[in-house]
Amino acid sequence: MITNAVLSKQHVDAFKKIVGDRFVYTDEESLQKYSHDETEDLHYLPEVVIRPSTAEEISAILKICNKEKIPVTPRGAGTGLSGGALPHLGGVLLSTERMNSILEIDERNLQVTTEPGVITEVLQNAVKEKKLFYPPDPSSRGSCFIGGNISENSGGPKAVKYGVVKDYVLNLEMVLPNGEIIWTGANVLKNATGYNLTQLVVGSEGTLGVVTKIVLKLLPMPRHDLLMLVPFHSAENACAAVGAIFRAGYTPSALEFMERDALDWVTKFVEGSTIKIEENVQAHLLIEVDGNNPDVLVQEMEGIAVIVQEFECGEILFADNTQQKTELWKLRRRVAEAVKANSVYKEEDTVVPRAELPVLLKGVKDIGKKYGFHSVCYGHAGDGNLHVNIIKGNLTDEQWNGSLKDGIKEIFALVKKLGGTLSGEHGIGLVQKEYMNIVFNETQLRLMKEIKKIFDPNNILNAGKIFDV
Amino acid sequence: MITNAVLSKQHVDAFKKIVGDRFVYTDEESLQKYSHDETEDLHYLPEVVIRPSTAEEISAILKICNKEKIPVTPRGAGTGLSGGALPHLGGVLLSTERMNSILEIDERNLQVTTEPGVITEVLQNAVKEKKLFYPPDPSSRGSCFIGGNISENSGGPKAVKYGVVKDYVLNLEMVLPNGEIIWTGANVLKNATGYNLTQLVVGSEGTLGVVTKIVLKLLPMPRHDLLMLVPFHSAENACAAVGAIFRAGYTPSALEFMERDALDWVTKFVEGSTIKIEENVQAHLLIEVDGNNPDVLVQEMEGIAVIVQEFECGEILFADNTQQKTELWKLRRRVAEAVKANSVYKEEDTVVPRAELPVLLKGVKDIGKKYGFHSVCYGHAGDGNLHVNIIKGNLTDEQWNGSLKDGIKEIFALVKKLGGTLSGEHGIGLVQKEYMNIVFNETQLRLMKEIKKIFDPNNILNAGKIFDV
Repeated sequence: MITNAVLSKQHVDAFKKIVGDRFVYTDEESLQKYSHDETEDLHYLPEVVIRPSTAEEISAILKICNKEKIPVTPRGAGTGLSGGALPHLGGVLLSTERMNSILEIDERNLQVTTEPGVITEVLQNAVKEKKLFYPPDPSSRGSCFIGGNISENSGGPKAVKYGVVKDYVLNLEMVLPNGEIIWTGANVLKNATGYNLTQLVVGSEGTLGVVTKIVLKLLPMPRHDLLMLVPFHSAENACAAVGAIFRAGYTPSALEFMERDALDWVTKFVEGSTIKIEENVQAHLLIEVDGNNPDVLVQEMEGIAVIVQEFECGEILFADNTQQKTELWKLRRRVAEAVKANSVYKEEDTVVPRAELPVLLKGVKDIGKKYGFHSVCYGHAGDGNLHVNIIKGNLTDEQWNGSLKDGIKEIFALVKKLGGTLSGEHGIGLVQKEYMNIVFNETQLRLMKEIKKIFDPNNILNAGKIFDV
Repeated sequence: MITNAVLSKQHVDAFKKIVGDRFVYTDEESLQKYSHDETEDLHYLPEVVIRPSTAEEISAILKICNKEKIPVTPRGAGTGLSGGALPHLGGVLLSTERMNSILEIDERNLQVTTEPGVITEVLQNAVKEKKLFYPPDPSSRGSCFIGGNISENSGGPKAVKYGVVKDYVLNLEMVLPNGEIIWTGANVLKNATGYNLTQLVVGSEGTLGVVTKIVLKLLPMPRHDLLMLVPFHSAENACAAVGAIFRAGYTPSALEFMERDALDWVTKFVEGSTIKIEENVQAHLLIEVDGNNPDVLVQEMEGIAVIVQEFECGEILFADNTQQKTELWKLRRRVAEAVKANSVYKEEDTVVPRAELPVLLKGVKDIGKKYGFHSVCYGHAGDGNLHVNIIKGNLTDEQWNGSLKDGIKEIFALVKKLGGTLSGEHGIGLVQKEYMNIVFNETQLRLMKEIKKIFDPNNILNAGKIFDV
């Protein structure tokens, strides 16, 4: 483990020579600005912030850091929820903000080549203008970077039908910690040529290299979608309905679960919300279907409506215009913010096989009772991905920083028992790594750590994230 | 590199103790039987053939081989086309034939857990009975094993809409060369928990471990499909039509290309074929759409028909009954056999971005003229995956074993220039490894070789496949 190194003025001068004086920062305000991401209330000051604009500049920076064993933390937009972009060892904070060009939208091959610092929604809109579709859409898509999405293998609501980031990445240009620049694969839809370095890098949380170019697969843009909000009197019934929808042969383009508190808090948090929640409602499902034929979509919605009624749902709200759809999606996307605004919290990004959701939800509540914590749960139910927000509420600091950890461990032990794992889309980063040994044994961890050593023998790049080497 | 080891009687006795006398073979007939796969006419004798039935038995076998540095070649059904299952170093041939149970079809979670020695079509039919769908369907699906499909990251016609094997593998149990047994991930649809060992193993051609259990994602079975055969007067036009179909927003469930000779030879090869090929036809596209709504499928077929007519196609054959569909698919699936029966050949599994297919096809023909070889091309045009079958025809043995190699190198250099790579679905194995340095530089190869060393420090498992460590 590299401990906090102290950068010399010589190092800073060398960085300035590479990227220009204007893009190297050591002032307090800049260091503060890059000291946190969206993970809880954690802060770690870097020693210097660098904003390079090319792979070649990053290569030159990494060569110095590798030689001098200076810790480097790559950072996209800083919207991460597991602390992957926190510079907890000081050193260099490497921001990709200036690498924000979409390099080519290849309409002939349905591909886009982009730099990592492009905001996900900007990329989605750019390809949408060409009637093309890039499905992965994390809630933070309005601010997160596509590069960060690669690092965390992000998902979002559309993943249930269209898959996650890993299903769209064809090829990556990356700078290795020693400064070498490589491509991980080829720009093809099928590839059986050597080990899949591309898939190894997706989701590796910036620990193997700094991604500098990304080639993504695109789809034709579906022309229509329909959305409905279904209230349930029992949260477990809502979860059970999810499995039934898939077993009936439907594949919604989104299937989101929100416990009562989640929707309740967000309707109060978002100004001008028109959604009313009935007294006896305990949870909601937000269900979307998409495709090219509106009649077929209506049939699908009707079929799904019949299924959810078997689970004692309340009155279904069919969003019948763009405004209502937009409001519902806005509410769903801002749940996390609303919860965060309501209380100090910790978020666990549990994922299990889809049909195990009711068991997981019940288990989380039982564990909460045992350890005295309240939780607000919501997430991508169609994928079995449940965000468990543990609310500090009346817990003392001792409980919050002490016994709660045992409760979280119990949640993850349950997740593992159900065939699931720690994180569906937020990554491990800094704050979940202590739980890795719940789901992996020594051998699995050893293989991962050895892979890290191949790419980064001096352990300079995002060291201490995912695991300690 | 391990050179041919000589196994002692003690080793063979130890293997017999592990799996039972009946499942260890050293007789000439057995050794011959396992000396080849479907790759050209290559033969290498193993020293012993072992047919274990459990991961624990494989673990015990590998512990001995690892200690004694005995080469081990894992083998599924032996249908591979790149020599991955050839025991070119002698030693142990480890067959997974007896591990042929489907362990669980989980209808609640749309997953199946299977052993590796299950025939792909058997698995597909078993899940189809539950109205579930496992899309990857290599031409050899009637005889190949699901374990081999994992090793090669197989594709097949459905890949164009549904993706390849890697898109369905959730989790793998594997035995490492040192005998340790691990799972690579979790049984979940989304996973951001450490490095993706699952995706590293898929397509690694049996060089990292022996896969002993496989958890696959399933889809609801689409209820209808339509198929048409479209003749073209120009092969390049046929390729060009492929890109146009996707750009118009259609995603066929299969989009296969066959040069005239391919379809001509196979109609003569398959008994009772009713398909007639017009004089001036140079290539065919076989186009399938699938889904749940027959009216929508008819609309899609009509829309696609309009597009292909812009590329000067001949009279389209709409397969309007099951028998006709079955015949067309049978022809397509047996093209490789027909070509093989016609002449000694070498098959290259080129893959490029889809829209580059016409350029690739023209390039292959030009290179053929330069080096004096005839080629028959066919493949999964929707994925940009073109199987180039080089026919020995009148080439002398000197040309065949000599200058032809330069021609193949030129083909791969063109593939690389077009953004493609060596293999879309057949793998590198033994016969393509000499071309790896055309598409990968030293650094990329070093990373792969170092990964191999982590998993297999003694280089006992399928050593000398993909690359020499």
